[in-house]
Amino acid sequence: MYTMRNFKIILQYDGGAYHGWQIQKNGVTVQETVQNAVRAVTGENITLKGAGRTDAGVHALRYPASFRSQTRIPCGRLPYAINSKLPPDIVCLFAEEMPPEFDASKNAKGKTYIYKILNSDLPDAFLRRYAWQVRGRLDVEKMRSAAKAFTGEHDFAGFCSAGFTVKTTVRTIYALNVEKDGDIITVSVTGNGFLYNMVRIIAGTLVFAGQGRLCPDDMADIIASRDRTRAGITAPPQGLFLAEVFY
Amino acid sequence: MYTMRNFKIILQYDGGAYHGWQIQKNGVTVQETVQNAVRAVTGENITLKGAGRTDAGVHALRYPASFRSQTRIPCGRLPYAINSKLPPDIVCLFAEEMPPEFDASKNAKGKTYIYKILNSDLPDAFLRRYAWQVRGRLDVEKMRSAAKAFTGEHDFAGFCSAGFTVKTTVRTIYALNVEKDGDIITVSVTGNGFLYNMVRIIAGTLVFAGQGRLCPDDMADIIASRDRTRAGITAPPQGLFLAEVFY
Repeated sequence: MYTMRNFKIILQYDGGAYHGWQIQKNGVTVQETVQNAVRAVTGENITLKGAGRTDAGVHALRYPASFRSQTRIPCGRLPYAINSKLPPDIVCLFAEEMPPEFDASKNAKGKTYIYKILNSDLPDAFLRRYAWQVRGRLDVEKMRSAAKAFTGEHDFAGFCSAGFTVKTTVRTIYALNVEKDGDIITVSVTGNGFLYNMVRIIAGTLVFAGQGRLCPDDMADIIASRDRTRAGITAPPQGLFLAEVFY
Repeated sequence: MYTMRNFKIILQYDGGAYHGWQIQKNGVTVQETVQNAVRAVTGENITLKGAGRTDAGVHALRYPASFRSQTRIPCGRLPYAINSKLPPDIVCLFAEEMPPEFDASKNAKGKTYIYKILNSDLPDAFLRRYAWQVRGRLDVEKMRSAAKAFTGEHDFAGFCSAGFTVKTTVRTIYALNVEKDGDIITVSVTGNGFLYNMVRIIAGTLVFAGQGRLCPDDMADIIASRDRTRAGITAPPQGLFLAEVFY
């Protein structure tokens, strides 16, 4: 009998080919793909827990997951062993042993997401899977001005798609930044948690502000209204990257 | 009867899904795809000429092509019209009218290629189609030292794969640079023309120099030997980008 150990792994994935993170009947998911890889490596029927759902087509730069195993493979070798069983659009970057109580799906204190916008009248062959193309010049200063209303603790019921029941729609956003580099506008947001589609609706709302379709000065009222119809559209999945999860 | 005009278009493409540029019987090519798009837009049975072959899986950042047409669509609108008939992995960036004698396949005075190497023990989910992963730390200074031997006019018979007959294997390289940014090493090369697989063999040879498998001081001899077996391997296609063509 070997000791049961608790492992955290950090994954990077291109979500373009997957039906999101969470295992489901209709379609291949990232969780299923990685769980099968870890099972193949350890020879054990492990259960892989992830740091939260990501939608179909959404990517991850550093996605934590955890599993318990008796494997004697050293942590330094584990990413290479797991990668040997993974398709090239999912990579295990890192593995470490954690205290027994750690659970990637339960202990998260916060997350950072990045949303990428290609602000160009012409598409880009290399960014088609990794950014949302928005035609017409966006006013980045208006986007930044609108972003200020989101920081702090708010009831984000108006920035949530139907589909999942939650105890509360109150969340705290620690930072929401808008950066421009050439034709690429990057929205990055850090908070203690996010509702279903919340980051994509925030991105869509900031784009509406940049287009002059919503006024930055109205943003606080729009949030306070808790009315989904007053916010902007849900930005498409391919621009969204889960960047970091904090424990 | 409208006037026949001569158009140059600039294309950007992700070559991952194509059997290279040039039309062939077995597989979809970029030339065929763009030619069909231009035919759909103009309603004419145009012939699209390109600035040279690219292999299966090779990309282009700015690829010039030309065709003759009586279309009355203004040049400023032509890219949008063509893009509406193209898949998202090929983009028309620009169109302009040229003198009647211009032919994208015949007038090129030089080309710049970029070759991207991911120098990391771990793969990258987002670069798997756009870089060659080389494990083990490459010595960039040795790569730069080896690169110096390539500039100038040389007989590059040893840096050429079999498959195409050419009048001469003498070519001039104007610049060959090696830059490193994080884990990404970028080789960029400008010359008056390139033999079949020449850039990929140069990239493979520079990697051998960076690994210490070939000595930078021997590079001039290796070129002068005209012996393919003394150079490095042919680097894989996904790291190669045709960056610019000069007329």
